[in-house]
Amino acid sequence: MSDLSHAHHVVIVGAGFGGLEVVHRLARAPVRITIIDQRNYHLFQPLLYQVATASLATSEIAWPVRHLLRKRKEVTTLLAVVTGIDSEDGKVLLEDGGVVAYDTLVLATGARHAYFGHDEWESHAPGLKTLEDATTIRRRILLSFERAERETDPERRAALLTFVIVGGGPTGVELAGTIAELAHENLREDFRHIDTRKARIVLIEAGPRILPSFTEDLSTYAYAALERLGVEIELGRPVRECTGNGVAFDDRKLSAKVILWAAGVRASSAADWLGVPADHANRIKVEPDLSAPGYPEIFVIGDTATIDGWQGKPVPGIAPAAKQQGRHVATTIKIRLRGDASPRPFRYKHSGSLATIGKRSAVIDFGWIRIRGWIAWWIWGLAHIYFVIGVRNRLAVALNWLWIYASGDRSARLITQGEQRPKLR
Amino acid sequence: MSDLSHAHHVVIVGAGFGGLEVVHRLARAPVRITIIDQRNYHLFQPLLYQVATASLATSEIAWPVRHLLRKRKEVTTLLAVVTGIDSEDGKVLLEDGGVVAYDTLVLATGARHAYFGHDEWESHAPGLKTLEDATTIRRRILLSFERAERETDPERRAALLTFVIVGGGPTGVELAGTIAELAHENLREDFRHIDTRKARIVLIEAGPRILPSFTEDLSTYAYAALERLGVEIELGRPVRECTGNGVAFDDRKLSAKVILWAAGVRASSAADWLGVPADHANRIKVEPDLSAPGYPEIFVIGDTATIDGWQGKPVPGIAPAAKQQGRHVATTIKIRLRGDASPRPFRYKHSGSLATIGKRSAVIDFGWIRIRGWIAWWIWGLAHIYFVIGVRNRLAVALNWLWIYASGDRSARLITQGEQRPKLR
Repeated sequence: MSDLSHAHHVVIVGAGFGGLEVVHRLARAPVRITIIDQRNYHLFQPLLYQVATASLATSEIAWPVRHLLRKRKEVTTLLAVVTGIDSEDGKVLLEDGGVVAYDTLVLATGARHAYFGHDEWESHAPGLKTLEDATTIRRRILLSFERAERETDPERRAALLTFVIVGGGPTGVELAGTIAELAHENLREDFRHIDTRKARIVLIEAGPRILPSFTEDLSTYAYAALERLGVEIELGRPVRECTGNGVAFDDRKLSAKVILWAAGVRASSAADWLGVPADHANRIKVEPDLSAPGYPEIFVIGDTATIDGWQGKPVPGIAPAAKQQGRHVATTIKIRLRGDASPRPFRYKHSGSLATIGKRSAVIDFGWIRIRGWIAWWIWGLAHIYFVIGVRNRLAVALNWLWIYASGDRSARLITQGEQRPKLR
Repeated sequence: MSDLSHAHHVVIVGAGFGGLEVVHRLARAPVRITIIDQRNYHLFQPLLYQVATASLATSEIAWPVRHLLRKRKEVTTLLAVVTGIDSEDGKVLLEDGGVVAYDTLVLATGARHAYFGHDEWESHAPGLKTLEDATTIRRRILLSFERAERETDPERRAALLTFVIVGGGPTGVELAGTIAELAHENLREDFRHIDTRKARIVLIEAGPRILPSFTEDLSTYAYAALERLGVEIELGRPVRECTGNGVAFDDRKLSAKVILWAAGVRASSAADWLGVPADHANRIKVEPDLSAPGYPEIFVIGDTATIDGWQGKPVPGIAPAAKQQGRHVATTIKIRLRGDASPRPFRYKHSGSLATIGKRSAVIDFGWIRIRGWIAWWIWGLAHIYFVIGVRNRLAVALNWLWIYASGDRSARLITQGEQRPKLR
């Protein structure tokens, strides 16, 4: 390989689907690449709910970034926390005082869950965006059954056996369906003093239907499928309050010790770093070519950006969209390096929407065809196994699922570690 | 099944190899059983070093106790912390104020690592007894490489790439060999600024040879095999001090950012609960029938007990010994229930000693035959897969190992969660 030490330097912040796609699509381009992430692993977020519900192990959906990129000698992987951008001098600022100079910068820093101005709800109603979130939720669910087993007061016991999921999008539906199966099937024989089949799983959605990004008939199907699994669904009910004892919605209160938040997201601080306009969820309103307004050398992709482009609606915050944007940015960088600086607008192509309801059913909307039921579940499973990176993990995940499917046994039921974020230093 | 609500109540504290064996061997006996553990899972400790070195996932060597025992309707599983025994009234005291009355009590509460009176070393030199220990060690090892990659000062970089293991027993040898492979093989291509093949792995042993419980020729073989993997071995060197910057032994100091402790264990507090004599490692000196001195209705097994019985030496603190003791106690309980209260002395039968050196070599001493090299490694692997509970985990562990063996790829390289113990409530 030729010496690239003076080559154009592309710095990518975030090793999610979007960031990694930029790296992959820049293979053999005359650039040096530095990819920065505050975690040492790429996370397959679409399967995170399976870690939260004790179906998969953490290492089955996460892979060390530098190992994924080990063959790409022009790529440097940096485990570091970004705290700002010096766009005048073209530098990324790191928490430890380090700086990384860039020629082109790609911000793919993702999103966290958001509480619509009620950040105090977070400790009572954790969301699901990181591995730590997933093991926190797993621990809370499993501990609640343990505590219920030892609780003699009927009211407190009922609260321990009530699981509330706020938000009826794909994550909320997947969590509700899987927790229902866990309680009503997998844990059935394990306890002596409680009947886990009597656990209540309540899905609360502010809007008029679950899975609002799907067509109405698929929403209706998912509603019925969740009810068959024993999930109670409350539609048109915005949550007014989350506490350590339960939730309030409408004029009602529901006692529950486990509340899970799947209702909203907020983009990372990238908009503040640049001082550019953002929408209500702090997503940067990018130019048609995915660059930040006023910064042609800075691209923003994935959950950090918002752009119209799908039937007049914003591009959805899903993995295929982030990857398409990553590919577009990589192509733009290559074309620019050849001397053509004319802007190339991004065109989103929606390949489909998927959501599972427990381990036997799913809904898929490809646009030209809509599928539901067990066939959709198998398509969903094969699609996810296909996208899981690396042969070994494909086999491991497939083996796990076959086992759960055949035996109803979820083995990753571990209550581990406290609720603390990892320290880098 | 007949009503057992008034049956003899056997309470077992600890769901390790010993405690679970008592439960298994009491199947169909006319007893009620309660098993108490402060974790919700049984841990396959012999493979814990593989979690610490990123080869296996936590859920592959740990199984929820109540799920293991779900078919045994007379068994109650309790997730609780024991704080004492009221032996006058026959009650186990729990941290949350609860009490559990027993007719027969089995204490199988295991051991932690110990620092010979230097508890202040623990934060600098973590030991390996729990899943949290293993993920802590994994995080420290992986973070040290990450920090070395970004360190420009040669001395500090060298300290970050020096891994010290204190203690040359099986755990120390297994850690040293696997870390050497991780550094010198698996991570070789992943970094850009450091050469992980230059990482130093130093095994320090106070005694005159490693693997002192094996014969001298196997010790010599293991020494040579470790050296081939690039491990530096210091024999006859008691460690004088562990700090955040390294270790001191003899008149020397060694700068190292990662120190792992595999040098000593200390039994749980069971001796204090009962106020009975214990040895230097706080192990209760049990009667020949494994009962606690003065308490015929209380048995103590596994790492919590010490008893002579193997070529005049104490029974070793290994899984097969704990299981033999568990079986002996279960049989004694059944015979007593039939009215025969005469003491039955425990006889230990040593089936063999095993230790692996990396992924290609091992030493096995069956007594009548000694095996070493790759054949020993395969016997070790098959034996461990056989003992790993449950078909699913056998397959998953075997798959993982085959993958590591074939590809040199360790996938469980995740830096997760902070250093905190889980809370039960």
